[in-house]
Amino acid sequence: MDLKNRRIAVIGAGIADPYLFELAYQVGFSLGQRGAIVYTGGLGGVMEAASKGAREAGSVTVGILPGNKAEEANPYVLIPVITDMGHARNVILVRTAEIVISIGGGYGTLSEIALALKMWKPVIGLKTWQDIPGVHYVDSPEEVLSKISELLS
Amino acid sequence: MDLKNRRIAVIGAGIADPYLFELAYQVGFSLGQRGAIVYTGGLGGVMEAASKGAREAGSVTVGILPGNKAEEANPYVLIPVITDMGHARNVILVRTAEIVISIGGGYGTLSEIALALKMWKPVIGLKTWQDIPGVHYVDSPEEVLSKISELLS
Amino acid sequence: MDLKNRRIAVIGAGIADPYLFELAYQVGFSLGQRGAIVYTGGLGGVMEAASKGAREAGSVTVGILPGNKAEEANPYVLIPVITDMGHARNVILVRTAEIVISIGGGYGTLSEIALALKMWKPVIGLKTWQDIPGVHYVDSPEEVLSKISELLS
Amino acid sequence: MDLKNRRIAVIGAGIADPYLFELAYQVGFSLGQRGAIVYTGGLGGVMEAASKGAREAGSVTVGILPGNKAEEANPYVLIPVITDMGHARNVILVRTAEIVISIGGGYGTLSEIALALKMWKPVIGLKTWQDIPGVHYVDSPEEVLSKISELLS
Repeated sequence: MDLKNRRIAVIGAGIADPYLFELAYQVGFSLGQRGAIVYTGGLGGVMEAASKGAREAGSVTVGILPGNKAEEANPYVLIPVITDMGHARNVILVRTAEIVISIGGGYGTLSEIALALKMWKPVIGLKTWQDIPGVHYVDSPEEVLSKISELLS
Repeated sequence: MDLKNRRIAVIGAGIADPYLFELAYQVGFSLGQRGAIVYTGGLGGVMEAASKGAREAGSVTVGILPGNKAEEANPYVLIPVITDMGHARNVILVRTAEIVISIGGGYGTLSEIALALKMWKPVIGLKTWQDIPGVHYVDSPEEVLSKISELLS
Repeated sequence: MDLKNRRIAVIGAGIADPYLFELAYQVGFSLGQRGAIVYTGGLGGVMEAASKGAREAGSVTVGILPGNKAEEANPYVLIPVITDMGHARNVILVRTAEIVISIGGGYGTLSEIALALKMWKPVIGLKTWQDIPGVHYVDSPEEVLSKISELLS
Repeated sequence: MDLKNRRIAVIGAGIADPYLFELAYQVGFSLGQRGAIVYTGGLGGVMEAASKGAREAGSVTVGILPGNKAEEANPYVLIPVITDMGHARNVILVRTAEIVISIGGGYGTLSEIALALKMWKPVIGLKTWQDIPGVHYVDSPEEVLSKISELLS
């Protein structure tokens, strides 16, 4: 599957345990291998893991930052966007994406899932908020990729 | 309980059945009687019902609108704020409120509940999204008022 | 002239000398006497002076705040709107207004004048940035009122 | 001069005559040759010309779009950011940039110049709004590059 220049957002909490970090890294890497532009909120945890994976696979990463400084981006953000708009950056992140992948996450992530569904964007959930109608739940990074393939076909 | 100039947001879907409309009206009326400033997203359904109640009780209503025209506000919005920012207005609405009351609602409302919890704002839930950790669930407009009283004391 | 519930923004710098403060106060007072809703950026200087005038004349004032706290509003803001969006609140302020009155001001004010003109909103200028095509320049608070009357007729 | 991964915004009107288009193209090309990330508002005119230049020189272009669709981006935007926030995207564009280059332009551009100066960002002006204190005025694409070099040294 070619994801060349497709816009995929990976959302999740700013602090991730090693297990979630690894999952997000693998998702980011798989997306990056296929040429996707990986958009995140630009901070740590799941955002950093997905960005790291995508960069190490050779793709482009965008960090839509809540604050007013490029320095708050994790080191794997190639393209920072500095919104200085706090959580309103969640709306921009989700609006920009063609598909949203949610991994773990707290209330901020829940807001992004809800916003994505409100905008009729497909949301793929991996070890994230459960039982939200409309989310495509999967159990592994491999299944994330199959689901993307299915959604885009 | 005096709510003079306290900032209370009422959130919920833009289309409400008569039962939810009546609940939201009663909540708005009770808030209005006590002098609260009632903030909503300014459109129809629960937003309109709560605004109608507050206005008919003699209080001030603010509509934080997603579009670019004052005309999209329901007739009970005294003070329109025209954001032209789509769903990002949800963030402003929640940020402005001291307490958020959620009545019914779809994905947009879920995003507001999540954003409010992310910002550590108290959320009172009445016939709305269930089982979200942190929401203060109640069963009637009277209980909404008791809960506000408890939260502010 | 009745300005009941008309939305008028007064823009200008957050620090004002006594002369500009007095001008802005008089403009705010005149607007307030006629029932206008006076919208400002909610901070000090010209924003505070106009809000003070409007409140003392018995009208409603709205402060569209850049930060994340109600406490940053000046004491004459009756209705705070807490955007947490920095200078992006300038866009909301201008979008909300039917007419924009600019008194004094620095770069932030210049951005608001330009945004208002971009949105085809009438801009009345009093002791503010000069020589901007499209601004209606006047020389006194009285002339501000005449110009509003002319623009609304 | 190496501009590898430096964030440079090029601002200007959405409709450009051939002369301004050529100037903006040359500026974009020079920036692209040096590895800068070229940020624009993503639409036509000066934004398109600068993006075209940067892409043809092999660099990365970001379009911070006002609307809600990727399709409104010009064909030379590699990385769209879809804000759905109208003119508030101007604030994000300017906030993101280390240096802002203004070429031609109307009121929207004037708002961006003012916002950039408000944020203490260097603004380089080429055939744009005149006589704004703080703008570094130059007369050619070559001088834009010299000025950047001077500002970054």
